[in-house]
Amino acid sequence: MPIERPESRQSIPSDAKLVFKGKLFDVYQWEQTLFDGTKTTFEKIKRLDTVVVFAVQDDGMIILTEQEQPGGLPFVGAAGGRVEQGEDPLSAVKRELLEETGYEADEYNVWDAQQPVGKIDWAVYTFIAHGARKVAEINLDAGEKIQLKLVTFDELIDIALQENFSEREVVEKFIEAKYDNTKREALRALFTPKV
Amino acid sequence: MPIERPESRQSIPSDAKLVFKGKLFDVYQWEQTLFDGTKTTFEKIKRLDTVVVFAVQDDGMIILTEQEQPGGLPFVGAAGGRVEQGEDPLSAVKRELLEETGYEADEYNVWDAQQPVGKIDWAVYTFIAHGARKVAEINLDAGEKIQLKLVTFDELIDIALQENFSEREVVEKFIEAKYDNTKREALRALFTPKV
Repeated sequence: MPIERPESRQSIPSDAKLVFKGKLFDVYQWEQTLFDGTKTTFEKIKRLDTVVVFAVQDDGMIILTEQEQPGGLPFVGAAGGRVEQGEDPLSAVKRELLEETGYEADEYNVWDAQQPVGKIDWAVYTFIAHGARKVAEINLDAGEKIQLKLVTFDELIDIALQENFSEREVVEKFIEAKYDNTKREALRALFTPKV
Repeated sequence: MPIERPESRQSIPSDAKLVFKGKLFDVYQWEQTLFDGTKTTFEKIKRLDTVVVFAVQDDGMIILTEQEQPGGLPFVGAAGGRVEQGEDPLSAVKRELLEETGYEADEYNVWDAQQPVGKIDWAVYTFIAHGARKVAEINLDAGEKIQLKLVTFDELIDIALQENFSEREVVEKFIEAKYDNTKREALRALFTPKV
């Protein structure tokens, strides 16, 4: 079953015009009818969707990445990256996990999917993967510096509440898990190996 | 004392070039040196900063807005809008509160300030205002539909956890307040009238 793309709260209409094509961002404009019947130009950005994956080994350890990008502050998060043109989210997440960590996994489940920013057409899919195992060396390009960090579920919750945790889309779920015991155990079950 | 602008985790360098100027979004590009010494073109978007204000009456009721924008789903949140070119955040928040709600306030404090999206140069300032009182009618443009909703602090926490709550930058603080009694009372103090 294909993964459904989450909807935006304010979509780019199909007749919108591409007015600028950048390296990462495309800019669309359209004539929007306002509440009084007058029209004005609306604008919205489009960028490639993102996939994020928390991969879990059969011993329960979760694979995080400590990353640095040129000109940016270091951060810690899951593996992940862009869904390239013509690629589907599942293929992208498998590719990014392999490139960034050298791991493959047996099973990928979508844990969260949303369009986090109102004026940007941009979906973020967050997966939890099971049966993860190291099969290759890390394969980075010159714009990436990555170190792996294996953590337990309880350690992950603490790290997710740090300011330099990069997976902002799921922070709310980790905060709830920190404070609400029922939610914590439900989330723990999603991260527990199926073997 | 002027309000300090929060820093981005990956800033646009001062020698970046403006390659597209849109209605809402400007696109900048620059040559970035990578970890192996090679160079590539990096790209980042800039948009006007946003101010958000939770205004509190002297009876403790907090002014929220139920809003609809053309082509978008309805949402509930605080008052707020863009910091126009040449405007400072405090002037902007006073103007937006008056336009969207018809209220003025005696005191404005910055509760949260952040740049929420990595690849966008865009700061969001969230204020709590005290001594709020109705002084005028709402003054909307044809792109806005707004109804006021007065709520207690406890009602605000429940509303902030709904999916259609628009002030995503502070949702984490409301979740913590929901579950952690110490944080809830600390936050309640910020929303308590000073009279």
